[in-house]
Amino acid sequence: MNRPVFIAGVGMTPFGVLHDSITELSSKASLQALQDSGLVDARIDRLVVGCQNPDEFTGIGHLSTIMSDQLGLVPSGATRVETGPSSGASGFEVGCSFIASGLAESVLVIGAEKMSEVGRGIASKILAKMMSNENETRYGATPTALAALITRRYMHEHGLTRDELSLVPVKAHRNGAKNPLAHFQREVTIDEVNVSRIVADPLTLYDCSPMSDGAAAALLVSEKYIPKLPSKELIAKVLGVGHATDFHAIQHRDSITSFKATKVSADAAFKMAKCTVKDIDVFELHDAFSILELVNMEDIGLFPKGESINFVRDEITAVHGDTPVNPTGGLKSRGHPTGATGMAQIHDLVRQLRGTAPKGLQVQSARKGLAHNIGGLGNNMVVSILECFS
Amino acid sequence: MNRPVFIAGVGMTPFGVLHDSITELSSKASLQALQDSGLVDARIDRLVVGCQNPDEFTGIGHLSTIMSDQLGLVPSGATRVETGPSSGASGFEVGCSFIASGLAESVLVIGAEKMSEVGRGIASKILAKMMSNENETRYGATPTALAALITRRYMHEHGLTRDELSLVPVKAHRNGAKNPLAHFQREVTIDEVNVSRIVADPLTLYDCSPMSDGAAAALLVSEKYIPKLPSKELIAKVLGVGHATDFHAIQHRDSITSFKATKVSADAAFKMAKCTVKDIDVFELHDAFSILELVNMEDIGLFPKGESINFVRDEITAVHGDTPVNPTGGLKSRGHPTGATGMAQIHDLVRQLRGTAPKGLQVQSARKGLAHNIGGLGNNMVVSILECFS
Repeated sequence: MNRPVFIAGVGMTPFGVLHDSITELSSKASLQALQDSGLVDARIDRLVVGCQNPDEFTGIGHLSTIMSDQLGLVPSGATRVETGPSSGASGFEVGCSFIASGLAESVLVIGAEKMSEVGRGIASKILAKMMSNENETRYGATPTALAALITRRYMHEHGLTRDELSLVPVKAHRNGAKNPLAHFQREVTIDEVNVSRIVADPLTLYDCSPMSDGAAAALLVSEKYIPKLPSKELIAKVLGVGHATDFHAIQHRDSITSFKATKVSADAAFKMAKCTVKDIDVFELHDAFSILELVNMEDIGLFPKGESINFVRDEITAVHGDTPVNPTGGLKSRGHPTGATGMAQIHDLVRQLRGTAPKGLQVQSARKGLAHNIGGLGNNMVVSILECFS
Repeated sequence: MNRPVFIAGVGMTPFGVLHDSITELSSKASLQALQDSGLVDARIDRLVVGCQNPDEFTGIGHLSTIMSDQLGLVPSGATRVETGPSSGASGFEVGCSFIASGLAESVLVIGAEKMSEVGRGIASKILAKMMSNENETRYGATPTALAALITRRYMHEHGLTRDELSLVPVKAHRNGAKNPLAHFQREVTIDEVNVSRIVADPLTLYDCSPMSDGAAAALLVSEKYIPKLPSKELIAKVLGVGHATDFHAIQHRDSITSFKATKVSADAAFKMAKCTVKDIDVFELHDAFSILELVNMEDIGLFPKGESINFVRDEITAVHGDTPVNPTGGLKSRGHPTGATGMAQIHDLVRQLRGTAPKGLQVQSARKGLAHNIGGLGNNMVVSILECFS
């Protein structure tokens, strides 16, 4: 990027099935982010809202304009960005781009989704629109069914067992239980995961992230603002951003147990950040389904193909392990309001880098963090790398 | 912007009620833009799709990923941008930002919408979601009803007559009749406009832009690509981009016969372009309703408040007048597939700057052009200024 981009403040609502409307959620997260920055009378040049489908989930269109109005940002330009469930991270990328290009000195980025209002059945139909109609949806496939297919194939290729797979949500819930903002704040056992309701064989209920409501936000600023920020220790720097697509239908890809777009976007982010996966202290990876956490860790380059479950079992990926992954519960336990997730990852990473993660979830001496957000079923990925400023 | 941005190629489908799907329309415009650039084996770093609501208008979600796949751009990153009917121009802005920030050297920007599939009644309901539910929609107001309110107020304030207002669509159709890509390719008379069906008093059918299907695209490149482009005369340079919002509901604004967001976005674009309205040779202004062309010309700074109709009557805004506005028919006659319009404006301006506008529609010695795209009912505006490169 041609100019450095900094994160001056972050905010996030609790995730869950909430009473608040999408505009209320967006406002709450935004006001927190602005207050958190400590900037007084900052002019916000641009607003970017990452949201998958406010029109259908909530009946509210034109969300970026509404939020500009409600937050008192008029006449600043406002833009909505959509790439399915990676809309939050794509909004973050556009926000970074606005600053790096010189189009703005300060950008408020919101990630938000309100999914519970329409009910689970309709929400599933809305979500299924992100899949290939020609190749998938019209044959009855759903995102969960395809995740089940990936899981079955991964089990076949690498001998993963049901008990092993359950270690992934068990770890997620162990972390989420300590996160006051998480959708689910209770631990689960391997047995509970194994015998919970089958959603799409072999995936049980506890293998699937929930449909949640929620919002997260960040205030991005250019270098110009650094002297005005009250606490340098609170600032994070954006080291790199990568964005990649893959073929829309999973049947057109070389492999279904590895996502090439993760590799391409991560490579781009590492190149920009001038570092490797070994330099990263904490990871936020898109675990919408149990199997995805394993696939993502391998694609990001953390562990050899087919072996990542061993590192979960040995607690290498636990909060206090060598390679902490999803210390605040991930999508599985923190919740997954689709457009909000990418910004929740940024929010949680910034708190890790500041050393202000929730009690019991702080990764020791975290200096660099990586967020990985999936759009579609593995076909629109954004990887962002952040670092402590001070 | 920190780096200059150039338009290397443009493409556009005919606008109208078409058989093609939204992905077919997007592909056709894109392939034209790529071919038009003359770049062989160009790597496209990013795809940006400006589209208001593909999910509801067509049942297809995740449009940016689908287009990356269909156009053979995988693994390049792809992003959809939405700001209501200014989605095309907002996509253009994000595309420019990706290049100016250094995130990309080449970006394909598509503007597209397919509105005819769901039928007029449902399409109207989908469009109405961009208005304020609290203040407008739930009382039965539609975009057309609010445009009628603005028209009536403008008539009251400035003594505009029905016959005078009709001069606006008459001019639009006179131009559109010569544009082979226009939705309506026939002239209309003042009498025809006056006596056509009342849509929302005082607006008749011919005061309202149609719901159309269509797509337009442009290939944006950094300076690095200039030596590789076969014809320097075909290149346009992006001089400035401005983006502004206004209060969501029209009742909260100081005036309803002037759009402050037009002034703010135009001021920003002029400042970036280091020029004034007097330096612009050709204008594309968002005339979704007859009254808007008058309001926009005044807000852009072309004519004094309340007097613009005199310049229409005297043919100052005709193709061969001193201040040509919407020489290819504008939204009224070219058509208005909402997300496509902003990119159609860019397409038509580039052809003007190249001297390759349709026969009878070429503005003499056009060196600089301005596009103005409205989102919502006057609350999310993007103004772009282009110039000949050679």
